Amino acid sequence: MQKVVDSIQGSYDRYLNELKQFCAIPSVSARSEHKGDIQRAAQWVADQMKSIGLEKVELVPTARHPIVYGEWLHAPGKPTLLFYGHYDVQPAEPLDQWLSPPWELTLRNGELYARGVVDDKGQVFMHFKALEAFMKNQGRLPVNVKFMIEGEEEVGSENIYKFIRERRDRLGCDALLVSDTTMLGKGLPSVCYGLRGLCYFEIEITGPTVDLHSGSFGGGVPNPSTILCEMMAKLHDKDGRVTIPGFYRDVRPLTKPERKQLKQLPFSDKRFQETTGAPQLVGEKGFSTVERIWARPTLEINGIYGGYTGEGAKTVIGSKATAKFSTRLVADQVPAKITKLVKKHIEKITPKSVRMKFTLHSEGDAWIAPFDHPLVQAGKAALERGFGKKAVFIREGGSIPLVATMYKEFKKPCVLLGFGLPDENAHAPNERLNLENFQKGIVSLAYYYDEASRTH
Amino acid sequence: MQKVVDSIQGSYDRYLNELKQFCAIPSVSARSEHKGDIQRAAQWVADQMKSIGLEKVELVPTARHPIVYGEWLHAPGKPTLLFYGHYDVQPAEPLDQWLSPPWELTLRNGELYARGVVDDKGQVFMHFKALEAFMKNQGRLPVNVKFMIEGEEEVGSENIYKFIRERRDRLGCDALLVSDTTMLGKGLPSVCYGLRGLCYFEIEITGPTVDLHSGSFGGGVPNPSTILCEMMAKLHDKDGRVTIPGFYRDVRPLTKPERKQLKQLPFSDKRFQETTGAPQLVGEKGFSTVERIWARPTLEINGIYGGYTGEGAKTVIGSKATAKFSTRLVADQVPAKITKLVKKHIEKITPKSVRMKFTLHSEGDAWIAPFDHPLVQAGKAALERGFGKKAVFIREGGSIPLVATMYKEFKKPCVLLGFGLPDENAHAPNERLNLENFQKGIVSLAYYYDEASRTH
Repeated sequence: MQKVVDSIQGSYDRYLNELKQFCAIPSVSARSEHKGDIQRAAQWVADQMKSIGLEKVELVPTARHPIVYGEWLHAPGKPTLLFYGHYDVQPAEPLDQWLSPPWELTLRNGELYARGVVDDKGQVFMHFKALEAFMKNQGRLPVNVKFMIEGEEEVGSENIYKFIRERRDRLGCDALLVSDTTMLGKGLPSVCYGLRGLCYFEIEITGPTVDLHSGSFGGGVPNPSTILCEMMAKLHDKDGRVTIPGFYRDVRPLTKPERKQLKQLPFSDKRFQETTGAPQLVGEKGFSTVERIWARPTLEINGIYGGYTGEGAKTVIGSKATAKFSTRLVADQVPAKITKLVKKHIEKITPKSVRMKFTLHSEGDAWIAPFDHPLVQAGKAALERGFGKKAVFIREGGSIPLVATMYKEFKKPCVLLGFGLPDENAHAPNERLNLENFQKGIVSLAYYYDEASRTH
Repeated sequence: MQKVVDSIQGSYDRYLNELKQFCAIPSVSARSEHKGDIQRAAQWVADQMKSIGLEKVELVPTARHPIVYGEWLHAPGKPTLLFYGHYDVQPAEPLDQWLSPPWELTLRNGELYARGVVDDKGQVFMHFKALEAFMKNQGRLPVNVKFMIEGEEEVGSENIYKFIRERRDRLGCDALLVSDTTMLGKGLPSVCYGLRGLCYFEIEITGPTVDLHSGSFGGGVPNPSTILCEMMAKLHDKDGRVTIPGFYRDVRPLTKPERKQLKQLPFSDKRFQETTGAPQLVGEKGFSTVERIWARPTLEINGIYGGYTGEGAKTVIGSKATAKFSTRLVADQVPAKITKLVKKHIEKITPKSVRMKFTLHSEGDAWIAPFDHPLVQAGKAALERGFGKKAVFIREGGSIPLVATMYKEFKKPCVLLGFGLPDENAHAPNERLNLENFQKGIVSLAYYYDEASRTH
């Protein structure tokens, strides 16, 4: 094992050069103009799988973006781990806020900067390198692995479900393995045991059929921007609770022991606030920040626009106004039920003076796991060996819809070993990954494959 | 006079060719990248003035966009009219909604389409052609004229005030003449005797200092888009009244006779609604649509944006959210006072969890005139001769800040002869000017210069 670790520690420069190539591909799944980049990124992943010795590597086409699959199954009697990750990334906009180009991996003050470097290209790449080190030094892996890397995680993972259903038998495993989450903080290696679910909506309000002069018409016609604001303002009460009837009905309440455990985590509100730069933290009354972001459902506007959004002043009443907004869900909320409640409520609060178009972009279940399974506990042990520090069990406010689906489908534990940090701008300009976490993370993953092999 | 009218009626094709050149210049005053186009448009106006025989034509530089000035003062004993218009235009966006290119004058079904064709290039051009016809056929004008065409009307007319103060003596006149308003409806030639004032604001709300992942942070941090919506939603009560304390304090109430007169106008709510395409009309309780848009102050959002505004879904909490909004004012509201009230109220309703930046884009007084002055009455007579129909006195909901200023400055009547129609998309895609109104308008203007000469 020491040879594997030594080999990893001697290869960091080469790793960065390879990762640079991967991050250079603007594989933005939300934008149709990046279709070609998506293909190139998928091909890059397939080539990487082949180069490290995975077998049966294929680029599986879907209705939208391809899934890359590869496996190595020559460790009889040992556990089989199904790794899931994604090669698609969020849009890089607003470009003018990046301090170095988003598609050019840049090392600055011990941080690796690039769109996708932490979410999720870098973390997928770390697994490849851990496996490569085994192959190079031992000619084999300590466990069986199946790798499944998709290109639609940032747009709702729509097509991977069909893929999973169709290959149900070939995807059998002892645990699902994912590295797409964050550590609780720097120097706090973390195993994540809960994720929130997601419903992502868009509503478009149309008042007049064309933009109107705000002088000639102002005061006499419905203004979609104003009406959209009034509607969105109705979705929270003054205690920060979501007002949609039935929204909290199925929420699994936090137990006393869990609240106590969450309280004991080294989570600092002050540090969290400094990370965000917001003048004040806010949220649902009666809950701590950790509870609000991990264990309570929320509703957030993700984007809003209407009327004139350019430079200077334009005296116009826009014909349309749009809001993109999403709910984060917790166990045991059912996304399809939430979508129904949200749609019904939005319809109810839409005034008759405008038309409203409701779009559901995506839905994903929340997920929570017991953490006493040996393959989950192996995660904690591996992190402690890799980082030389005590590891913690945490939840995460984000969503990886597939994790919940896989859990429902295969009834196997899911091990979430994330190496990001909460302030690394996963979906924002200047996305980054701490170099030390990148390096220790690869070593930790090697230990994880080793630890996992000992559970059987 | 008949020769002048015949000459106009025989020149329509040439007029359209010339207007096409004028409209081809994208003189968008709000956008710095159009600085060169603004210059070209100003030069085009100056060249046009020279070609029709105006004298002392100059392009007067200001701190931003030049003012074009020209005059003809060889009608002793006759009235002097100071014409004001503007050669700058609104941005053409959204471009994809134009049925023909915005910078290419296109005749379709009896309508002239182009950005600026009605607001205000086409209407300025109509005056040039009326004067040209006198010069060509009579070698002289029936009145004295001073022409002052600015390039900042769409961005608040900031620099023309200095120009007016500096040239106070040279700008002396018997009446100000403007063609930048609309007729009440097709076949309803109209003299406008009231305009609303304007204060245009922008507020920028900053929560987190960078965009954040809405999963990892949602529920725990202030969301600027949500907060902006909540703030904007507070600016109207359920009766459509503006809630800013003191907002209505100085409003000159509508008199009973004026309400009666407004009621008698051939204004149809149904037709107005159809013009806008809105499913329903809305507005301040207790007032008719005409009263709401002409004689009551309003507050409208002109543009709003925050977070992700691109295609598809992005799970982000934007760092910033912005609203552009404006108040339309009526006599006797004072813009500087309203700005103070709005700023104070916005500051009051900004929660401590965010930062707020308040910007005033522009301010302009409302204006209302007595309409018994001979030079105003001459307008009605000219329109009736030009259109062969009864003309009406109307107000207009839009703002021409300069009209109010000139009135305060020179205490001279202002004659507003507008040839646009309310549904001609002045600030929207597919801006147009009815060809018949364009043609009859030029004839009417010739009659106006003739009628005006008879008042002395």
